[in-house]
Amino acid sequence: MQSKKIGKQTINYLHPVSIVSFASIVGPKEGQGPLGSSFDYILADNLDGEKSWEKTEQKMLEHSLALALAKKNYLAKDLDYFLAGDLLNQIVCSNFTARAIGTPFLGIYGACSTLVEGLVLGSILIDGGYGSRVGIASSSHHETAERQLRFPTELGVQRTMTAQWTVTGSGAYILEDNPNGADIVITQGIIGKVIDLGQANAMDMGAAMAPAAADTITQYFKDTGRKPEDFDLIITGDLGNIGRVLCQQLVLQSGYDISKNYSDCGVLIYDPAQDTHAGGSGCGCSASVLAGYLLPQIIEGKLRNIFLVGTGALLSPTSAQQGETIPCIAHGIVIQGNR
Amino acid sequence: MQSKKIGKQTINYLHPVSIVSFASIVGPKEGQGPLGSSFDYILADNLDGEKSWEKTEQKMLEHSLALALAKKNYLAKDLDYFLAGDLLNQIVCSNFTARAIGTPFLGIYGACSTLVEGLVLGSILIDGGYGSRVGIASSSHHETAERQLRFPTELGVQRTMTAQWTVTGSGAYILEDNPNGADIVITQGIIGKVIDLGQANAMDMGAAMAPAAADTITQYFKDTGRKPEDFDLIITGDLGNIGRVLCQQLVLQSGYDISKNYSDCGVLIYDPAQDTHAGGSGCGCSASVLAGYLLPQIIEGKLRNIFLVGTGALLSPTSAQQGETIPCIAHGIVIQGNR
Repeated sequence: MQSKKIGKQTINYLHPVSIVSFASIVGPKEGQGPLGSSFDYILADNLDGEKSWEKTEQKMLEHSLALALAKKNYLAKDLDYFLAGDLLNQIVCSNFTARAIGTPFLGIYGACSTLVEGLVLGSILIDGGYGSRVGIASSSHHETAERQLRFPTELGVQRTMTAQWTVTGSGAYILEDNPNGADIVITQGIIGKVIDLGQANAMDMGAAMAPAAADTITQYFKDTGRKPEDFDLIITGDLGNIGRVLCQQLVLQSGYDISKNYSDCGVLIYDPAQDTHAGGSGCGCSASVLAGYLLPQIIEGKLRNIFLVGTGALLSPTSAQQGETIPCIAHGIVIQGNR
Repeated sequence: MQSKKIGKQTINYLHPVSIVSFASIVGPKEGQGPLGSSFDYILADNLDGEKSWEKTEQKMLEHSLALALAKKNYLAKDLDYFLAGDLLNQIVCSNFTARAIGTPFLGIYGACSTLVEGLVLGSILIDGGYGSRVGIASSSHHETAERQLRFPTELGVQRTMTAQWTVTGSGAYILEDNPNGADIVITQGIIGKVIDLGQANAMDMGAAMAPAAADTITQYFKDTGRKPEDFDLIITGDLGNIGRVLCQQLVLQSGYDISKNYSDCGVLIYDPAQDTHAGGSGCGCSASVLAGYLLPQIIEGKLRNIFLVGTGALLSPTSAQQGETIPCIAHGIVIQGNR
């Protein structure tokens, strides 16, 4: 019998888990970006008729899940579990979404790696036989994140060129245990370690997170014996332009060349002309790019398999103000198509 | 073959999971309480030599895990996974503890239900064959929680009689897959739904959380066909004096009388003379009481089985200020002794 755990950190789903539905919602800036036409719904403005940005973000998360359910004619009560997390203190967007749907709920937090953490855990629930249908979702909102984690956007504080732009976006996914004939399956997951090389600049998260991403990517290749060329695409969540280059270099130093097929969701989601400096970040970055841009390509057969590595900076404003450096993490999943 | 899922929300661990080690650390006030002699270590003061209360809380979480590992002569690298969460924004105590130990890490958040969420998920990782040894920990600290979620304690704001006192404490647990001859096993878990009956007073969390606890307790009995008298003890995490009474009444309205064997960690941890008003709360409440007070009684054979229901109020200061009510959740685990 095959093992469910390979090497030090990789999980083998022996009953590959199917992603049967998914949906993405983004803000106007993301809608104007290079992937704009890929998303299911684009907000007209960052408030979308709500009284606060926080309520907008919660609505976006809830609606992306509703959309993913509706695509399969499911109701929330058809889910065995709902797993979600977001950047807001006490993950309130996720909590209020869980309240709205009434499904057994597990709150998770991995900063911008939250979506992949959810997909790894959701796949365990399905693969392990603890349920047959699981919903996963994550979100971020530019204004809610900036005012909570950096500066309120009304202040107009000048951003450094290394800073990333928090994506306004959300993505939701429905996992099931029916791999026969499924278009998309999750076959493996890897749970990351917290890595901190001493970077303390919250205006350069990509550089802080790159070592965690490189560690997880390298560990996956060591655990499984697979090679970079085994994938059509290796893609990190939100390292942005600076972190992407560092990650590629660090992985190369460990003996794996990912230069031919490596990209980053935070690099793809904005055009350099959009003035986002180092690219996109936030839980909603990989959450919306996977649902809007990547999975449709797997269904169409343009991509046969991808290794998605969600990256998270696990600091808080309090820890930064108390002089701490930035602890980072990266979790990964392997997604395959059947075409 | 038995099913891993029973009824709507209950999980059956077919390979019962052993709690092989556990440790608790509390603050001075908790050390002076009725359970004071039960805990492994009592801080001399709320700073314990650190420069900030946040650093003290992180140290307490890290040391409780180190203590649980040391009791079995284990090192952190012997763990397959570490699951943790706490009340601080972005669960930073847990993140920095994960950084210190270098173990694959899953961040979780369920407010004061976090410990039980971790035990449910950790048991799934063991039962499902995804690992053979998992560490779980959670913490809270009176001063860090009060200044983040209510008022800085230096302000001396008068507390209402319905307010609970956030426990300074932490608990850590090591789970393994070797049930043969194990003193303590986790046999079942239940994942809660978010319940919100419209209570908006953050100074009366017990009343807000009681319906969620009652829902999970009632659902467990419905799912399994078990009855209150099947347990030596049914114990909630931190409903306190007010929430405990409400929970018992709500469960009775659903047809189950738990009055004979029901208690609450937040009621047990302080003496009424300690001026904590409605009792204890916080992630560290159930985390320290389970490790310090309950599990030793299972080992000694004084308790044969308990149903621990961790309760969490999933609000944030922002959601409260924006006029939201308090969404609450409760997760449960069934713990049995072998004596």
